[in-house]
Amino acid sequence: MKSFSSSREMQAMCRKLILAGNRIALVPTMGCLHEGHLSLMKTARERGNILAVSIFVNPIQFGKGEDYERYPRDIRRDSRLCAETGVDLLFCPEASDIYATDHSVFVDETVLSQGMCGSFRPGHFKGVTTVVAKLFNIVQPDVAVFGHKDIQQALIIKQLVRDLNFPIDVVIAPTVREADGLAMSSRNNLLTDDDRRVAPCLWKALGLAQSLAAGGYKDTAGIRDKMTELIQAEAPSACIDYIEFANCATLHPTATISGPTVVALAVRLGKVRLIDNLVIGERDAL
Amino acid sequence: MKSFSSSREMQAMCRKLILAGNRIALVPTMGCLHEGHLSLMKTARERGNILAVSIFVNPIQFGKGEDYERYPRDIRRDSRLCAETGVDLLFCPEASDIYATDHSVFVDETVLSQGMCGSFRPGHFKGVTTVVAKLFNIVQPDVAVFGHKDIQQALIIKQLVRDLNFPIDVVIAPTVREADGLAMSSRNNLLTDDDRRVAPCLWKALGLAQSLAAGGYKDTAGIRDKMTELIQAEAPSACIDYIEFANCATLHPTATISGPTVVALAVRLGKVRLIDNLVIGERDAL
Repeated sequence: MKSFSSSREMQAMCRKLILAGNRIALVPTMGCLHEGHLSLMKTARERGNILAVSIFVNPIQFGKGEDYERYPRDIRRDSRLCAETGVDLLFCPEASDIYATDHSVFVDETVLSQGMCGSFRPGHFKGVTTVVAKLFNIVQPDVAVFGHKDIQQALIIKQLVRDLNFPIDVVIAPTVREADGLAMSSRNNLLTDDDRRVAPCLWKALGLAQSLAAGGYKDTAGIRDKMTELIQAEAPSACIDYIEFANCATLHPTATISGPTVVALAVRLGKVRLIDNLVIGERDAL
Repeated sequence: MKSFSSSREMQAMCRKLILAGNRIALVPTMGCLHEGHLSLMKTARERGNILAVSIFVNPIQFGKGEDYERYPRDIRRDSRLCAETGVDLLFCPEASDIYATDHSVFVDETVLSQGMCGSFRPGHFKGVTTVVAKLFNIVQPDVAVFGHKDIQQALIIKQLVRDLNFPIDVVIAPTVREADGLAMSSRNNLLTDDDRRVAPCLWKALGLAQSLAAGGYKDTAGIRDKMTELIQAEAPSACIDYIEFANCATLHPTATISGPTVVALAVRLGKVRLIDNLVIGERDAL
């Protein structure tokens, strides 16, 4: 495994590999790697003969008062995991390499980014699309793999690639879960023991939505109420940012479940904000 | 010369050429080609072994009430000129190929784009950076050549390339002028005979600024007044959008000429808006 902290050197190496006929598959991450990331890497490995992973906690996608400072970091462990997983190129830049002090160019998605997490984290997706565009230009991959857990992000990246003509296939890989259903996330490490114990309530609420829809219940407002009740019963101190029902491709909110519908939610447990989602109404829709 | 109207086919062809070891040099244009464009092509030809030219009148860089509809187009003549000039790849897409009906991703430069033409054409440079990012991803050039006449655009493109890590060298090529000093522009075709006769007043005003600075006159407000007088005397019906003095690299406005300074101006003659600029205070600064 070759490691790079300089975007210039990473770009030069990637260019050399591409011109030699290699196909690079990229997994962009913010580090503190878990089974979910390793699963993305396995998917990427099947799509390219060079596996590249970036680890960068991107400051501009965190708002004021969000958890940029306390976002978990463990680059030694991450680096070891990447080496063990067969990563060929590891890119771990400093923020000062990625953003010049007079950085002034941003990439913005203006439709898909409006609801859900976009409503609660203004500027978040602009930070995401900007850094992903940069990573795409540095690594120049044939394929990039993103996780289904961050479904809004994944669909925004697909739109970024289509609308800016990046010659890249975007693959959305399934969410990996703990035994109790909690979606893997670096932020799970930040939960208190009590909050970790009740955190599977997100997944239970999604399962409830699926059962209700499968049983013929189509009114999303009613399903949302029952999901809210479940979460409040399991985790009384939880704060629900949103529970949304939307078209799987456009993320347009829907009042009735007709065809594949993504149910997405964001819940705060203490200082930790967790997200999760599930496609209901039809299987294998994404 | 191979011509393409499909961005997908153009991108596939460029990718093939790059992987075969070629260096592509791109000249993005809005067509209605003149000697200025041909000069950019000559510069590009020296920098790559494949010369690519795009012709696309980009709707999203024109504001409401601007001249998108009446912007001159002559694709047959352009195509012939490109073939004669040794262009290898000509890319002439339709707007519907470049912008899906649900296009929602934009690239925005937020500092250099604020003054000068940015003040008078809100959204213009956002349209420019968005389409140029798209063209860069479609053509994937090693080098891209832009004209010095559009100095603010050229500097914004340099910032775009740096801030989004495009692996592209941006070359700014000198302005080509008519015998009477008027900077070559596709919009010159739209001038009435009377306006065409007085249009060199922009170049004369820039020359006056250069003479004054060379003579030790450093106060930009005073120079601006004299330039304004000259234009009003030569073209009484002209409407001056701006005459600005700025740092050559940052475009920060400057009150005093100390070191290389770009003098840029935009003047409307009838319905036609002309721009021009000159670096004074020091030669060969850009």
